[in-house]
Amino acid sequence: MLSIRPAQPSDKDTLWRILEPVIRAGETYTLPRDMDREEALSYWMAPDRLCFVAEDQERVVGTYVLRANQTGGGAHVANCGYMTASDATGRGVARTMCEHSLEIARQAGFLAMQFNFVISSNDRAVRLWRHLGFEIVGRLPNAFQHPKQGYVDAFVMFRSLQADEG
Amino acid sequence: MLSIRPAQPSDKDTLWRILEPVIRAGETYTLPRDMDREEALSYWMAPDRLCFVAEDQERVVGTYVLRANQTGGGAHVANCGYMTASDATGRGVARTMCEHSLEIARQAGFLAMQFNFVISSNDRAVRLWRHLGFEIVGRLPNAFQHPKQGYVDAFVMFRSLQADEG
Repeated sequence: MLSIRPAQPSDKDTLWRILEPVIRAGETYTLPRDMDREEALSYWMAPDRLCFVAEDQERVVGTYVLRANQTGGGAHVANCGYMTASDATGRGVARTMCEHSLEIARQAGFLAMQFNFVISSNDRAVRLWRHLGFEIVGRLPNAFQHPKQGYVDAFVMFRSLQADEG
Repeated sequence: MLSIRPAQPSDKDTLWRILEPVIRAGETYTLPRDMDREEALSYWMAPDRLCFVAEDQERVVGTYVLRANQTGGGAHVANCGYMTASDATGRGVARTMCEHSLEIARQAGFLAMQFNFVISSNDRAVRLWRHLGFEIVGRLPNAFQHPKQGYVDAFVMFRSLQADEG
Protein backbone atom coordinates (compact mmCIF):
# COMPACT_ATOMS: atom_id res chain seq x y z
CA MET A 1 0.00 0.00 0.00
CA LEU A 2 1.54 3.26 -1.15
CA SER A 3 1.33 6.49 0.75
CA ILE A 4 2.20 9.86 -0.67
CA ARG A 5 3.53 12.86 1.23
CA PRO A 6 5.26 16.16 0.42
CA ALA A 7 9.01 15.80 -0.05
CA GLN A 8 11.31 17.20 2.64
CA PRO A 9 14.86 18.50 2.32
CA SER A 10 15.92 15.30 4.09
CA ASP A 11 14.64 13.30 1.09
CA LYS A 12 17.35 14.64 -1.19
CA ASP A 13 19.58 11.57 -1.12
CA THR A 14 16.63 9.32 -1.79
CA LEU A 15 15.34 11.54 -4.58
CA TRP A 16 18.72 11.57 -6.26
CA ARG A 17 18.78 7.76 -6.21
CA ILE A 18 15.51 7.85 -8.17
CA LEU A 19 16.39 10.72 -10.50
CA GLU A 20 19.93 9.71 -11.40
CA PRO A 21 19.21 6.52 -13.39
CA VAL A 22 16.30 8.21 -15.20
CA ILE A 23 18.49 11.17 -16.16
CA ARG A 24 21.48 9.02 -17.12
CA ALA A 25 19.30 6.81 -19.35
CA GLY A 26 17.95 9.89 -21.16
CA GLU A 27 15.02 7.97 -22.59
CA THR A 28 12.03 9.57 -20.93
CA TYR A 29 12.92 13.14 -19.90
CA THR A 30 14.48 16.00 -21.85
CA LEU A 31 17.16 16.56 -19.25
CA PRO A 32 20.89 16.64 -19.97
CA ARG A 33 22.18 13.13 -19.34
CA ASP A 34 25.23 14.50 -17.52
CA MET A 35 23.19 16.63 -15.10
CA ASP A 36 24.76 16.49 -11.65
CA ARG A 37 23.04 15.92 -8.32
CA GLU A 38 22.74 19.58 -7.41
CA GLU A 39 21.35 20.66 -10.79
CA ALA A 40 18.91 17.78 -10.82
CA LEU A 41 17.60 18.43 -7.33
CA SER A 42 17.37 22.18 -7.99
CA TYR A 43 15.29 21.39 -11.06
CA TRP A 44 13.09 18.75 -9.45
CA MET A 45 12.53 20.66 -6.19
CA ALA A 46 12.37 24.15 -7.72
CA PRO A 47 10.45 26.76 -5.73
CA ASP A 48 7.64 26.96 -8.29
CA ARG A 49 6.81 23.26 -7.84
CA LEU A 50 5.24 21.03 -5.26
CA CYS A 51 7.30 17.88 -4.84
CA PHE A 52 5.89 14.65 -3.45
CA VAL A 53 7.30 11.24 -2.64
CA ALA A 54 5.51 7.89 -2.74
CA GLU A 55 6.42 5.46 0.02
CA ASP A 56 5.91 1.74 0.26
CA GLN A 57 6.38 0.82 3.92
CA GLU A 58 8.61 3.87 4.51
CA ARG A 59 10.75 3.13 1.47
CA VAL A 60 10.53 5.88 -1.14
CA VAL A 61 9.62 4.26 -4.48
CA GLY A 62 8.63 7.28 -6.54
CA THR A 63 8.41 11.04 -6.74
CA TYR A 64 6.38 13.56 -8.63
CA VAL A 65 6.24 17.31 -9.07
CA LEU A 66 3.27 19.56 -9.76
CA ARG A 67 3.27 23.15 -10.95
CA ALA A 68 1.31 25.58 -13.07
CA ASN A 69 2.24 24.86 -16.68
CA GLN A 70 2.12 28.55 -17.58
CA THR A 71 1.74 31.81 -15.69
CA GLY A 72 -0.76 34.58 -16.44
CA GLY A 73 -3.71 33.50 -18.58
CA GLY A 74 -2.41 29.92 -18.65
CA ALA A 75 -2.04 29.45 -14.91
CA HIS A 76 -5.21 27.33 -14.55
CA VAL A 77 -3.54 24.35 -16.26
CA ALA A 78 -1.31 22.13 -14.13
CA ASN A 79 1.73 20.20 -15.24
CA CYS A 80 3.31 17.18 -13.58
CA GLY A 81 6.35 14.97 -13.91
CA TYR A 82 6.67 11.52 -12.36
CA MET A 83 9.60 9.22 -11.70
CA THR A 84 9.51 5.70 -10.28
CA ALA A 85 12.48 4.04 -8.61
CA SER A 86 14.13 1.66 -11.04
CA ASP A 87 13.55 -1.31 -8.74
CA ALA A 88 9.87 -0.49 -8.21
CA THR A 89 8.49 -0.30 -11.75
CA GLY A 90 5.46 -2.30 -12.81
CA ARG A 91 3.79 -2.06 -9.41
CA GLY A 92 1.39 0.80 -10.00
CA VAL A 93 3.57 3.49 -8.48
CA ALA A 94 3.19 5.91 -11.40
CA ARG A 95 -0.52 5.27 -11.56
CA THR A 96 -0.98 5.97 -7.87
CA MET A 97 1.13 9.12 -8.10
CA CYS A 98 -0.81 10.37 -11.12
CA GLU A 99 -4.16 9.77 -9.44
CA HIS A 100 -2.86 11.62 -6.37
CA SER A 101 -1.62 14.51 -8.51
CA LEU A 102 -4.98 14.84 -10.27
CA GLU A 103 -6.66 15.14 -6.91
CA ILE A 104 -4.12 17.63 -5.54
CA ALA A 105 -4.37 19.69 -8.74
CA ARG A 106 -8.16 19.72 -8.50
CA GLN A 107 -7.99 20.80 -4.87
CA ALA A 108 -5.56 23.55 -5.79
CA GLY A 109 -8.09 24.90 -8.27
CA PHE A 110 -6.48 23.84 -11.52
CA LEU A 111 -8.99 23.18 -14.29
CA ALA A 112 -6.87 20.89 -16.44
CA MET A 113 -3.55 19.08 -16.56
CA GLN A 114 -1.10 19.05 -19.44
CA PHE A 115 1.96 16.95 -20.16
CA ASN A 116 4.16 18.88 -22.57
CA PHE A 117 6.50 16.19 -23.74
CA VAL A 118 5.58 12.53 -23.47
CA ILE A 119 8.06 10.62 -25.56
CA SER A 120 6.20 8.41 -28.01
CA SER A 121 8.54 5.47 -27.46
CA ASN A 122 7.61 5.44 -23.77
CA ASP A 123 4.69 3.09 -24.42
CA ARG A 124 4.01 2.29 -20.82
CA ALA A 125 3.60 5.97 -19.91
CA VAL A 126 1.47 6.79 -22.95
CA ARG A 127 -0.82 3.87 -22.21
CA LEU A 128 -1.09 4.77 -18.54
CA TRP A 129 -1.86 8.44 -19.13
CA ARG A 130 -4.54 7.54 -21.66
CA HIS A 131 -6.03 5.11 -19.19
CA LEU A 132 -6.13 7.94 -16.65
CA GLY A 133 -8.09 10.19 -18.98
CA PHE A 134 -5.39 12.07 -20.86
CA GLU A 135 -5.75 12.55 -24.57
CA ILE A 136 -3.00 13.06 -27.09
CA VAL A 137 -3.74 16.61 -28.26
CA GLY A 138 -0.50 17.19 -30.11
CA ARG A 139 2.30 15.33 -31.85
CA LEU A 140 5.77 16.89 -32.10
CA PRO A 141 7.52 15.26 -35.05
CA ASN A 142 11.02 13.93 -34.28
CA ALA A 143 11.18 16.25 -31.30
CA PHE A 144 13.16 13.82 -29.15
CA GLN A 145 16.53 12.28 -29.84
CA HIS A 146 16.33 8.91 -28.14
CA PRO A 147 19.74 7.50 -27.22
CA LYS A 148 18.89 4.12 -28.74
CA GLN A 149 16.06 4.75 -31.20
CA GLY A 150 17.19 8.04 -32.76
CA TYR A 151 14.62 10.76 -33.45
CA VAL A 152 11.16 9.90 -32.22
CA ASP A 153 7.96 11.92 -31.86
CA ALA A 154 6.77 13.39 -28.60
CA PHE A 155 3.16 13.85 -27.55
CA VAL A 156 1.37 16.68 -25.82
CA MET A 157 -1.25 15.14 -23.54
CA PHE A 158 -4.10 16.92 -21.81
CA ARG A 159 -7.07 16.26 -19.60
CA SER A 160 -9.74 18.35 -18.02
CA LEU A 161 -10.10 18.24 -14.24
CA GLN A 162 -13.68 19.40 -14.27
CA ALA A 163 -16.12 16.84 -12.95
CA ASP A 164 -18.65 17.13 -15.76
CA GLU A 165 -16.02 16.22 -18.31
CA GLY A 166 -14.81 13.19 -16.35
CA MET B 1 13.91 48.66 -44.12
CA LEU B 2 14.32 46.72 -40.87
CA SER B 3 17.61 45.64 -39.47
CA ILE B 4 18.00 43.12 -36.67
CA ARG B 5 20.81 42.97 -34.14
CA PRO B 6 21.47 41.32 -30.77
CA ALA B 7 20.00 43.25 -27.85
CA GLN B 8 22.38 45.07 -25.52
CA PRO B 9 21.95 45.91 -21.84
CA SER B 10 21.46 49.53 -22.99
CA ASP B 11 18.27 48.43 -24.80
CA LYS B 12 16.47 47.70 -21.55
CA ASP B 13 14.37 50.88 -21.46
CA THR B 14 13.36 50.39 -25.05
CA LEU B 15 12.55 46.73 -24.52
CA TRP B 16 10.39 47.53 -21.55
CA ARG B 17 8.41 50.03 -23.65
CA ILE B 18 7.64 47.16 -26.03
CA LEU B 19 7.04 44.47 -23.41
CA GLU B 20 4.93 46.45 -20.98
CA PRO B 21 1.80 46.99 -23.12
CA VAL B 22 1.89 43.38 -24.33
CA ILE B 23 2.14 42.09 -20.76
CA ARG B 24 -0.50 44.48 -19.41
CA ALA B 25 -2.95 43.50 -22.16
CA GLY B 26 -2.48 39.81 -21.31
CA GLU B 27 -3.97 38.70 -24.62
CA THR B 28 -1.06 37.04 -26.36
CA TYR B 29 1.44 35.81 -23.75
CA THR B 30 0.98 33.69 -20.64
CA LEU B 31 2.75 36.21 -18.44
CA PRO B 32 1.32 37.70 -15.25
CA ARG B 33 -0.32 40.98 -16.25
CA ASP B 34 1.15 42.71 -13.21
CA MET B 35 4.74 41.66 -13.96
CA ASP B 36 7.10 44.52 -13.18
CA ARG B 37 9.94 45.86 -15.30
CA GLU B 38 12.67 43.88 -13.60
CA GLU B 39 10.81 40.57 -13.72
CA ALA B 40 9.85 41.10 -17.34
CA LEU B 41 13.37 41.96 -18.46
CA SER B 42 14.85 39.07 -16.45
CA TYR B 43 12.43 36.76 -18.24
CA TRP B 44 12.88 38.20 -21.72
CA MET B 45 16.67 38.52 -21.50
CA ALA B 46 17.29 35.34 -19.48
CA PRO B 47 20.77 33.80 -19.83
CA ASP B 48 19.44 30.75 -21.70
CA ARG B 49 18.06 32.93 -24.50
CA LEU B 50 19.37 34.99 -27.36
CA CYS B 51 17.58 38.32 -27.49
CA PHE B 52 17.36 40.44 -30.64
CA VAL B 53 15.90 43.82 -31.50
CA ALA B 54 14.49 44.95 -34.84
CA GLU B 55 15.25 48.54 -35.80
CA ASP B 56 13.62 50.79 -38.34
CA GLN B 57 16.04 53.66 -38.91
CA GLU B 58 17.56 53.22 -35.46
CA ARG B 59 14.19 53.12 -33.76
CA VAL B 60 13.55 49.77 -32.06
CA VAL B 61 10.20 48.45 -33.30
CA GLY B 62 10.32 44.84 -32.17
CA THR B 63 12.18 42.21 -30.21
CA TYR B 64 12.44 38.47 -30.22
CA VAL B 65 14.07 35.74 -28.18
CA LEU B 66 15.39 32.37 -29.25
CA ARG B 67 16.32 29.40 -27.08
CA ALA B 68 16.33 25.63 -27.06
CA ASN B 69 12.78 24.54 -26.27
CA GLN B 70 14.00 21.62 -24.18
CA THR B 71 17.33 20.39 -22.88
CA GLY B 72 18.79 16.89 -23.28
CA GLY B 73 17.18 14.83 -26.03
CA GLY B 74 14.92 17.75 -27.00
CA ALA B 75 17.66 20.37 -27.41
CA HIS B 76 17.59 20.26 -31.22
CA VAL B 77 14.24 22.08 -31.33
CA ALA B 78 14.28 25.87 -31.01
CA ASN B 79 11.63 28.07 -29.49
CA CYS B 80 11.03 31.77 -30.09
CA GLY B 81 8.88 34.59 -28.82
CA TYR B 82 8.26 37.83 -30.70
CA MET B 83 6.88 41.20 -29.66
CA THR B 84 6.23 44.19 -31.89
CA ALA B 85 6.03 47.76 -30.60
CA SER B 86 2.38 48.76 -30.29
CA ASP B 87 2.85 51.65 -32.72
CA ALA B 88 4.60 49.51 -35.33
CA THR B 89 2.13 46.69 -35.93
CA GLY B 90 0.94 45.78 -39.41
CA ARG B 91 4.22 46.65 -41.07
CA GLY B 92 5.83 43.24 -41.32
CA VAL B 93 7.96 43.53 -38.20
CA ALA B 94 6.94 40.15 -36.81
CA ARG B 95 7.36 38.52 -40.19
CA THR B 96 10.86 39.91 -40.61
CA MET B 97 11.81 38.86 -37.08
CA CYS B 98 10.46 35.34 -37.60
CA GLU B 99 12.34 34.92 -40.88
CA HIS B 100 15.49 36.14 -39.14
CA SER B 101 14.96 33.75 -36.25
CA LEU B 102 14.50 30.79 -38.59
CA GLU B 103 17.81 31.60 -40.21
CA ILE B 104 19.62 32.11 -36.88
CA ALA B 105 18.15 28.86 -35.55
CA ARG B 106 19.27 27.00 -38.66
CA GLN B 107 22.77 28.44 -38.34
CA ALA B 108 22.87 27.43 -34.69
CA GLY B 109 22.16 23.85 -35.71
CA PHE B 110 18.55 23.55 -34.60
CA LEU B 111 16.55 21.08 -36.69
CA ALA B 112 13.09 22.46 -35.99
CA MET B 113 11.24 25.28 -34.27
CA GLN B 114 8.28 24.95 -31.95
CA PHE B 115 5.86 27.49 -30.52
CA ASN B 116 4.37 26.05 -27.36
CA PHE B 117 1.44 28.34 -26.81
CA VAL B 118 -0.03 30.35 -29.68
CA ILE B 119 -3.33 31.69 -28.47
CA SER B 120 -6.04 30.76 -30.94
CA SER B 121 -7.69 34.16 -30.74
CA ASN B 122 -4.48 35.78 -31.96
CA ASP B 123 -5.54 35.40 -35.60
CA ARG B 124 -2.84 37.57 -37.02
CA ALA B 125 -0.08 35.52 -35.41
CA VAL B 126 -1.62 32.16 -36.31
CA ARG B 127 -1.99 33.25 -39.93
CA LEU B 128 1.54 34.60 -40.09
CA TRP B 129 3.15 31.52 -38.57
CA ARG B 130 1.25 29.27 -40.97
CA HIS B 131 2.36 31.43 -43.84
CA LEU B 132 5.94 31.01 -42.64
CA GLY B 133 5.70 27.24 -42.70
CA PHE B 134 4.50 26.38 -39.22
CA GLU B 135 1.80 23.79 -38.78
CA ILE B 136 -0.65 23.48 -35.94
CA VAL B 137 0.43 20.17 -34.41
CA GLY B 138 -1.56 20.46 -31.20
CA ARG B 139 -4.63 22.13 -29.74
CA LEU B 140 -4.84 22.81 -26.00
CA PRO B 141 -8.52 23.11 -25.15
CA ASN B 142 -9.44 26.21 -23.12
CA ALA B 143 -5.82 26.50 -22.04
CA PHE B 144 -5.80 30.30 -22.04
CA GLN B 145 -7.99 32.66 -20.07
CA HIS B 146 -8.33 35.66 -22.35
CA PRO B 147 -9.13 38.86 -20.46
CA LYS B 148 -11.94 39.73 -22.89
CA GLN B 149 -12.94 36.45 -24.54
CA GLY B 150 -12.76 34.06 -21.60
CA TYR B 151 -11.30 30.59 -22.05
CA VAL B 152 -9.90 30.02 -25.53
CA ASP B 153 -7.78 27.26 -27.05
CA ALA B 154 -4.05 27.53 -27.59
CA PHE B 155 -2.10 25.94 -30.41
CA VAL B 156 1.23 24.16 -30.48
CA MET B 157 2.92 25.07 -33.76
CA PHE B 158 5.94 23.40 -35.31
CA ARG B 159 8.12 23.52 -38.38
CA SER B 160 11.15 21.67 -39.58
CA LEU B 161 14.27 23.69 -40.39
CA GLN B 162 15.71 21.06 -42.67
CA ALA B 163 16.04 22.17 -46.25
CA ASP B 164 14.51 19.08 -47.82
CA GLU B 165 11.31 19.60 -45.90
CA GLY B 166 11.05 23.25 -46.92
